[in-house]
Amino acid sequence: MKISINGLHKAFESRIRLGIMSALAVNDHLDFNSLKDLLDVTDGNLASHLKGLEKEGFVGVKKRFIGRKPNTKYVITENGREAFDDHLSTLEKLINSQK
Amino acid sequence: MKISINGLHKAFESRIRLGIMSALAVNDHLDFNSLKDLLDVTDGNLASHLKGLEKEGFVGVKKRFIGRKPNTKYVITENGREAFDDHLSTLEKLINSQK
Repeated sequence: MKISINGLHKAFESRIRLGIMSALAVNDHLDFNSLKDLLDVTDGNLASHLKGLEKEGFVGVKKRFIGRKPNTKYVITENGREAFDDHLSTLEKLINSQK
Repeated sequence: MKISINGLHKAFESRIRLGIMSALAVNDHLDFNSLKDLLDVTDGNLASHLKGLEKEGFVGVKKRFIGRKPNTKYVITENGREAFDDHLSTLEKLINSQK
């Protein structure tokens, strides 16, 4: 019985990235602090993983001003949603192979 | 809705380690080449991840001679099975939160 790990994407190999994608997949958009609270991670960790996911094209960044204050929102991209769905369905097959 | 990633274990973040643990969890023991074929990975990658899992105490190594030839078998340890089950159930909750 071959164990398929090919469907698992290297970009999602970190727990924090799994958390970021899960959060963005079920929210229209989230700002930095909401993500930080949701995932209970440090600023540095969150910033570096967001940057990595942005470089992959899986997370998009929307910047605007609210009054005089800059506001940054993060969103999942279509590519990100597709790659993450593939990743999760491969994980699900792997989990079911254990039952 | 808090996204819990705490139940995810850092030792299982790599796809190859997920594959190794999945294979060992459903087999009494496997030797190096069987693991390599099952997972379709290079010798170097497999060896380094097996070493890492062994250091964590999640994989055990059994060495013996078959005739004059040395034979090494890998097994999942009780700690490994427990930690991996926790990891998979956290992943399952994360996947279900997407449905």
